[in-house]
Amino acid sequence: MIKSRSFASDNNSGVHPQILKAIANAGSGHVVAYGSDNYTDRAVKKFRTIFGKDTEVFFVFNGTAANVLALAAMTKSYHAVICSQFAHLHMDECGAPEKFTGNKLLTIPTLDGKINLEGIKKQFAGQGDQHHVQAKVISITQVTELGTVYSVKEIKAITKFAHENDLYVHMDGARIANAAASLGLGLKQATRDLGIDVLSFGGTKNGLLFGEAVVFFNTKLAHDFKFIRKQGMQLASKMRFIAAQFDELLTDDLWLRNARHSNRMAQLLYNELQNIPGIKIPRKTVANSVFAQIPKKVISKLQKEYFFYVWDDEKSEVRWMTSFDTQEEDIFAFVRALRKVLK
Amino acid sequence: MIKSRSFASDNNSGVHPQILKAIANAGSGHVVAYGSDNYTDRAVKKFRTIFGKDTEVFFVFNGTAANVLALAAMTKSYHAVICSQFAHLHMDECGAPEKFTGNKLLTIPTLDGKINLEGIKKQFAGQGDQHHVQAKVISITQVTELGTVYSVKEIKAITKFAHENDLYVHMDGARIANAAASLGLGLKQATRDLGIDVLSFGGTKNGLLFGEAVVFFNTKLAHDFKFIRKQGMQLASKMRFIAAQFDELLTDDLWLRNARHSNRMAQLLYNELQNIPGIKIPRKTVANSVFAQIPKKVISKLQKEYFFYVWDDEKSEVRWMTSFDTQEEDIFAFVRALRKVLK
Amino acid sequence: MIKSRSFASDNNSGVHPQILKAIANAGSGHVVAYGSDNYTDRAVKKFRTIFGKDTEVFFVFNGTAANVLALAAMTKSYHAVICSQFAHLHMDECGAPEKFTGNKLLTIPTLDGKINLEGIKKQFAGQGDQHHVQAKVISITQVTELGTVYSVKEIKAITKFAHENDLYVHMDGARIANAAASLGLGLKQATRDLGIDVLSFGGTKNGLLFGEAVVFFNTKLAHDFKFIRKQGMQLASKMRFIAAQFDELLTDDLWLRNARHSNRMAQLLYNELQNIPGIKIPRKTVANSVFAQIPKKVISKLQKEYFFYVWDDEKSEVRWMTSFDTQEEDIFAFVRALRKVLK
Amino acid sequence: MIKSRSFASDNNSGVHPQILKAIANAGSGHVVAYGSDNYTDRAVKKFRTIFGKDTEVFFVFNGTAANVLALAAMTKSYHAVICSQFAHLHMDECGAPEKFTGNKLLTIPTLDGKINLEGIKKQFAGQGDQHHVQAKVISITQVTELGTVYSVKEIKAITKFAHENDLYVHMDGARIANAAASLGLGLKQATRDLGIDVLSFGGTKNGLLFGEAVVFFNTKLAHDFKFIRKQGMQLASKMRFIAAQFDELLTDDLWLRNARHSNRMAQLLYNELQNIPGIKIPRKTVANSVFAQIPKKVISKLQKEYFFYVWDDEKSEVRWMTSFDTQEEDIFAFVRALRKVLK
Repeated sequence: MIKSRSFASDNNSGVHPQILKAIANAGSGHVVAYGSDNYTDRAVKKFRTIFGKDTEVFFVFNGTAANVLALAAMTKSYHAVICSQFAHLHMDECGAPEKFTGNKLLTIPTLDGKINLEGIKKQFAGQGDQHHVQAKVISITQVTELGTVYSVKEIKAITKFAHENDLYVHMDGARIANAAASLGLGLKQATRDLGIDVLSFGGTKNGLLFGEAVVFFNTKLAHDFKFIRKQGMQLASKMRFIAAQFDELLTDDLWLRNARHSNRMAQLLYNELQNIPGIKIPRKTVANSVFAQIPKKVISKLQKEYFFYVWDDEKSEVRWMTSFDTQEEDIFAFVRALRKVLK
Repeated sequence: MIKSRSFASDNNSGVHPQILKAIANAGSGHVVAYGSDNYTDRAVKKFRTIFGKDTEVFFVFNGTAANVLALAAMTKSYHAVICSQFAHLHMDECGAPEKFTGNKLLTIPTLDGKINLEGIKKQFAGQGDQHHVQAKVISITQVTELGTVYSVKEIKAITKFAHENDLYVHMDGARIANAAASLGLGLKQATRDLGIDVLSFGGTKNGLLFGEAVVFFNTKLAHDFKFIRKQGMQLASKMRFIAAQFDELLTDDLWLRNARHSNRMAQLLYNELQNIPGIKIPRKTVANSVFAQIPKKVISKLQKEYFFYVWDDEKSEVRWMTSFDTQEEDIFAFVRALRKVLK
Repeated sequence: MIKSRSFASDNNSGVHPQILKAIANAGSGHVVAYGSDNYTDRAVKKFRTIFGKDTEVFFVFNGTAANVLALAAMTKSYHAVICSQFAHLHMDECGAPEKFTGNKLLTIPTLDGKINLEGIKKQFAGQGDQHHVQAKVISITQVTELGTVYSVKEIKAITKFAHENDLYVHMDGARIANAAASLGLGLKQATRDLGIDVLSFGGTKNGLLFGEAVVFFNTKLAHDFKFIRKQGMQLASKMRFIAAQFDELLTDDLWLRNARHSNRMAQLLYNELQNIPGIKIPRKTVANSVFAQIPKKVISKLQKEYFFYVWDDEKSEVRWMTSFDTQEEDIFAFVRALRKVLK
Repeated sequence: MIKSRSFASDNNSGVHPQILKAIANAGSGHVVAYGSDNYTDRAVKKFRTIFGKDTEVFFVFNGTAANVLALAAMTKSYHAVICSQFAHLHMDECGAPEKFTGNKLLTIPTLDGKINLEGIKKQFAGQGDQHHVQAKVISITQVTELGTVYSVKEIKAITKFAHENDLYVHMDGARIANAAASLGLGLKQATRDLGIDVLSFGGTKNGLLFGEAVVFFNTKLAHDFKFIRKQGMQLASKMRFIAAQFDELLTDDLWLRNARHSNRMAQLLYNELQNIPGIKIPRKTVANSVFAQIPKKVISKLQKEYFFYVWDDEKSEVRWMTSFDTQEEDIFAFVRALRKVLK
């Protein structure tokens, strides 16, 4: 039997009760469709309060779209996007970026999921050469796909290089809340203040039922985004229900409480694992995931009780993620189950 | 002040209380993401019970995507889609079909929103000629964009012609529930049994919070749809919440009760309008809309109280739609307001 | 037996002897590929001499590409192109514009192949509305697909409206030489001076072996065209051979001599047909084509000797075109053959 | 002054005299456009004589198109193409494959330009997983971009693996003539007999003015290629002029004579370089190129006399290519110039 709260991913969790309540509160009565409603107005205002008045926000259905449409707003088809070899954009979107934007993704090898100037410079080649795609965007994921978190300094180095070279910087912030919590920064400090041009602001993995926001700090990139979103099949008719969720998430720091909680749970799991022999933890836990190398046989045994993903088959490395609703007893039960199968 | 229940569109309404409850019931606990969960299994089974065992169902976020991805499953980029000049696909998707599929839409002039063999044959030309796009799909909207409903005979004539000529038939069923209710047919009788290959089954306009289903009766067209959906940015991570809504909608004929109710409300409005001088009703109401030609001045006055769309500026024709939650008193209040501005 | 010089199309003819000689002269020795060569420099300079110093010119392989890539330079994917229902772009490119640009083509009904402000204004709708494609380009064909020629006044009205409304004007000039000859205008007078932004300058139908030029008068649209051309698969490695042909075509008015000749031949055919009963000529010949309505039976009989296209099956209307190499005796022989089958 | 015959690329050369003659012979008289002519028939027959009766051949303008359209014939947009990190397809087409096909290219690191099963297997992952692009084609370049030539055994290993795993194999044969000459194989032996599904058969680099052929041995992939070519903007109206060139190239082994000659010239250059100190030749010359690592200063000095490309800036590696028209005295003059600047 699969346990009701597992460690497969933070999108295996359900909806935060306050979010559900916000949806229910928005549920009756008629409002104009497609975002011309008070719920959307209010949510957009909240984004502007947090990120700065001159911020443009557009809601979309999911993270794939937030990322791909953000790129579409920054590029022409002959442009290229520099990103990590592990970028979700590159590995897990079934070619959605190539299909919608025509862009090539120029990937950088990395051990910890982060990219740096050395790698970026190798891919930043052939500018002006008509045979070569033209790099236009650097996309970084924060928290990275390997559970690491870019420091302020690391991001600033990237955005500085980008802007000196007429490139934009996109942040895939599917877990930006967890990153900000980990860094002890506010949302604006963790994004706009570091020079990010466009942010994919994640909601689904932080307790929303569905919904992501594309947030433009470089607002000249936003002027025709409503058409890109519509042609990209991402304009919700009952927009109020995405807006109401984000409104709630940004009220009284619900986003932060959720992120801190899941980070803390991952830390707890990480700490517990220190005491278990036969497990190798390749990277320190700084957000809401733990990666662990465990014997192959143990994986399949444990998966009978808990659904989770093998991250790297060759290294026998698995990924465990915590969520806003993970409980301490879930961790302890999981660790007990792990100890059992390890024997 | 805009009234809380207006007549602008059936997507201006909120969520049906039972649907909201279904969402809440699915809201806690962890399940595997992306559709590998019991909620999705159960919803798919319900579709199969209704439409036949050999039916393939895929949930997507909205109607744009249901239509465009359905076309993508049926076409290559040099293909063309024959549809009405008023097809939502053509008029209201900001070019999403062209962008995603590369297809040209071959439109047919129509007075009542329906297309027929005469029009189709005019566009069905140049097959085999490399200079010409190759028609591959006929797409019909049921209920049509002009509020009319194709008869069984009309659809059968189209599907017969299509299949004799190696074409597929797609039905944009954003309001298929209203059409089935209007025709007194079951869902299978109103779609599969008439020869439809792929159906966009509408949820949002019949009381869902969000969510549409792409339903394949011609199942060989479905074999790679999961990749098309993912690359089309329409794979929901928390899929259970679309599935749970559809499960509820298909339980105890909620879909039919909602559709019948909104149809009845439109009929009531239609009947009331008969007695008001100065209004021309171009088409009999058979589903959940009333189109009316009223003096231009009256339009703007009425819009101060009720938000609704002008359908045809030249003809001074407006569209009023009813919804699952429209009440008799809403109709009467609206008619009173209309009478007042008409004076 | 098909006659060696027929009247099917001006692309059924071969290469003008001077053009062939220019190719041969450029044929030996090494030059840098992809356009960084003296032949290309010289040809570009010739274009600038004729069209104005601030002209940008790019050579491509064929007319499909000249038109489609020109549109790509003027649009984003959610834009739309307003054109005639008969536009080659719309009817004869197998959907190439939709595939490469994502644009929707908004077509205007026309009897004589020309579009006018009345028609354009009907399609120029929904600007700013996110549900609607955004018209950005008006494309006109000169000579039109129906053999007519826009007057200076007609084009100026279109370009004035366009520029007042933030639209660009593209001219499909596959037969611009014939149009200029017909109007008694220079090339610049017939294009740039009328307000055209981007011109597809036809070579193949005026005696070249292959090759068309995309000519930018609105040079800000050209700044990244080299990437669009390369990604559009239209960068010739041995570019010198397109350049050398255009150089020759623009030398000593070869373009004009060819165009005048073919126009005159069409006029001769047109005059001869006046005297033949049973033939209806729907439009006066002003360039290098004659359209004629002749009995269906006669068509097939004549086609045994001469290959040509039926333009409109319903009207039994055929198209006969003359070319730079059409001879008076070809006309007379054709007319004799026609008279014979008409008996 | 740049020398009239340089070593920059085999597309810096002009047209072989026999090819030019063939063009001239086809130059006058009218024939039906778009390939329905005797020249095209005859050329296609010649391809079938050489490659087997059940071969389908389509002419296109250039190599970019031959490769990209071949891929389009084999893939849907969610598919992926496995190729070398140096594949021309990946490095030098400005993103044309991504734009036209939507495919992701999965690249394999290589030192000698060849890919092998070890590398292929690493990229052949995630089949059936909706999040992952679906590998469908392996594309190999013969001669490779690094001047090496796959052996019969190496190609057979790749095609065997491909066909066992439901993949197609595409060969970018821009220099297939040089490879066949190097291997001592006939054209069919070097392609079809090794299991290749679709071949891009290069003409331009072997003495043609322009023109490449897409050759289908797996003919079921060809059934709709005429539409793909037309929508891909690659249908030549005066097709006879590509056809006549290929006809000539395939007559009396002109292709082989040209290839052997250029290979021999490269071998001569390679041999001469052995005796010059300060030059490192990383790979043995087996076809018509020599790669050499020479001091950076020497490069710029030599480029004053001879235009050529730096292949790898970091390694100070340059590429010199020979052509059908390279003469022994060109080699000796070049070597003298090189010796001079090396001093």
